[in-house]
Amino acid sequence: MSLPPPWSLSATEAAQHIRAGQLTGTELADACRARIAAREPVVQAWAHVNKHTSETPRGPLHGIPIGLKDVIDTADQPTAYGAAAFAGHQPDTDADCVTLLRAAGAIILGKTHTAEFATYHPGPTANPINSAHTPGGSSSGSAAAVADYHVPMALGTQTVGSMIRPGSFCGVHGFKPTLGRYPTKGLCATSHTMDTLGVFARAVPDLLLMDSVLAPCPVPEPKSSGEAILMARTSAWGEASPALQAAFESCVAALKRAGVPVIERPLPAALEALLPVQTAIHARDVHHLLGPIAREHPVSKALIALIARGAMISDTDHAANLAILAAAKAALPELFHGVAALLSPAATGIAPKGLASTGDPVFSRIWTAVGTPCLSFPWGHDGGLPLGLQLIGAPHADRALLHLATDILSRIHI
Amino acid sequence: MSLPPPWSLSATEAAQHIRAGQLTGTELADACRARIAAREPVVQAWAHVNKHTSETPRGPLHGIPIGLKDVIDTADQPTAYGAAAFAGHQPDTDADCVTLLRAAGAIILGKTHTAEFATYHPGPTANPINSAHTPGGSSSGSAAAVADYHVPMALGTQTVGSMIRPGSFCGVHGFKPTLGRYPTKGLCATSHTMDTLGVFARAVPDLLLMDSVLAPCPVPEPKSSGEAILMARTSAWGEASPALQAAFESCVAALKRAGVPVIERPLPAALEALLPVQTAIHARDVHHLLGPIAREHPVSKALIALIARGAMISDTDHAANLAILAAAKAALPELFHGVAALLSPAATGIAPKGLASTGDPVFSRIWTAVGTPCLSFPWGHDGGLPLGLQLIGAPHADRALLHLATDILSRIHI
Repeated sequence: MSLPPPWSLSATEAAQHIRAGQLTGTELADACRARIAAREPVVQAWAHVNKHTSETPRGPLHGIPIGLKDVIDTADQPTAYGAAAFAGHQPDTDADCVTLLRAAGAIILGKTHTAEFATYHPGPTANPINSAHTPGGSSSGSAAAVADYHVPMALGTQTVGSMIRPGSFCGVHGFKPTLGRYPTKGLCATSHTMDTLGVFARAVPDLLLMDSVLAPCPVPEPKSSGEAILMARTSAWGEASPALQAAFESCVAALKRAGVPVIERPLPAALEALLPVQTAIHARDVHHLLGPIAREHPVSKALIALIARGAMISDTDHAANLAILAAAKAALPELFHGVAALLSPAATGIAPKGLASTGDPVFSRIWTAVGTPCLSFPWGHDGGLPLGLQLIGAPHADRALLHLATDILSRIHI
Repeated sequence: MSLPPPWSLSATEAAQHIRAGQLTGTELADACRARIAAREPVVQAWAHVNKHTSETPRGPLHGIPIGLKDVIDTADQPTAYGAAAFAGHQPDTDADCVTLLRAAGAIILGKTHTAEFATYHPGPTANPINSAHTPGGSSSGSAAAVADYHVPMALGTQTVGSMIRPGSFCGVHGFKPTLGRYPTKGLCATSHTMDTLGVFARAVPDLLLMDSVLAPCPVPEPKSSGEAILMARTSAWGEASPALQAAFESCVAALKRAGVPVIERPLPAALEALLPVQTAIHARDVHHLLGPIAREHPVSKALIALIARGAMISDTDHAANLAILAAAKAALPELFHGVAALLSPAATGIAPKGLASTGDPVFSRIWTAVGTPCLSFPWGHDGGLPLGLQLIGAPHADRALLHLATDILSRIHI
């Protein structure tokens, strides 16, 4: 049998061909490296490409090449955190997620460019669909590498909107699981309150496969209390572009045509209150965790400004913000009553032109803060670039959310 | 962005690229035709390839090329039923499923070789993984065409084991839905009791997509009464090869490791009684439906023998067989009590050598007769050819079965 080019396969497909003896991990990794070599002059997704393929265990990801956002420590490859001062920095140990990946048989193909310390100052990566546009960030290289078929999956992180937004801009799935579901030890910490490890993939089954590796013993999933999709425009709705708003409405119409119950009701006020609060908690956490680094090393003006904003938030104000966050989390049962998932924009529109900004994460702030699982999916396009929406599930209902997405997307793709 | 070769894409992926304006249905169909031209000398999957691509509606399958087993009537392409006497036969009207496909925007790329009248006398198709072996049958060309990346999906039919067995032999998913779920008007009828339209695909999401087209208004799905997987070896177990038996056991072990409850208990006797009864009902139905054709046209010795066996079954015996079938259907609630799905071999082993026989359908007989949905999946291999198992769901729980398969396969692929 003559197979398609290995770099074009999903992880699920590639794993099947490898198990059947029709493909080896070495062949697949070499094919991905060749694809990277051909495309990297335009896309610039990779901070480091691993030239060597070693034998890997016979786990569920045996022979599957994975890209890692360069804020994830690797003992065998440099980890620069998107910061010039850390160029060539070599961690001593693997992050916990890397340990799980290696044990599952994955090939760590390399490290992908990130915005500086997973915040806002962008790296060199361009959007593979139109290189005049940003891929989004901060998980820029991971999203672009998956979208451009360099690897079937790549890990990224989200503390504000760093998975969902680049996933949307590049037209792939960004999956941010429930806060705490995947291990964060060994990741560049920017917020102990909100840092979340996530996965980019071109196919939902790949996300289920990766979930079985990164959450080998997940907490039991709650039963969904309903089948409805709740429209979650949030008070940020006015910041969405006309094309994005139209795409959202067309998705709602398609859901209704497919017989999926879609409802609208005001979000609990405690959740809407989070938008400014999340911004403040993030700045404060960045001030605490990255401030000491910024005092010792040269960093971008954007990071200096973010740290300065965090420094202005008093302990009293921070405690009040954490109380508002706790109240928002307490409102989640009310939010999800009778609801299978929420539907929201994934970003304010298409990827902005230019590489200076990674775009606005406003549609992710609430959900990252309360820690609900989120999955972006492409829906429509505008000016040749993809638009994206996201489905948001109840905490710990991660696999249910992925299954719901599989079901819904197969029903409405018209 | 430079895309993978379009013929390598799943239907879900291709539809997304088409919607995003990165690919057209014409380009995709041309790429599939080129792939067919390159591979057809070895595989011989196609009875007719449609040379023309017309504009298609903007439905869920807009621009997606589909292959049809050549027992499915098409008003614009010849339909020969795998019978030399019908070479060049041109139906007046489309089968109902073709009407649904066209309305959904699919490109009917051509007709695939079938065993004669969807029974046992094989066509010319070879197994794409090793052309010295059969692809299985009777949906031979459809299974081979999907496995060999000629089209992302193809339709076939199953009256005994004509989807599950070739799916297993070729290493792709064969999906036989609940009896009656997809329309059979316009298909070569071999048994009004058991003829079932089915789908081959390389990815489960494609099957969900196709299900939304072929079952636009499905009956409501029953709630599963449990989460366990019931081992259904059946009394045919001894006919499975040692490698198949070992693969089955390794799958059970993998399920248990993944925390999936697997149980074993005797099947209701009414179901085990079906094995000889299904064979007799099939022969009798073929005698009634194909006997008149065989009297007017030259047919194979295998078909003549099958019709002769059917002619020997008296009306009294046939009525008794139908009563046994009714009793078996009445035992399904007991069978599925506490059970999410059954696990069974999909075939007795790998594809047999040579093209003279399409292999033994014994592991499909019971489930085709009672009309439960069945999904084959590749699991392990033997001598370089794939082995396959099947998951069997409760009647009308078709989408639940596909979702369960997605979940389970992502957990156990180790």
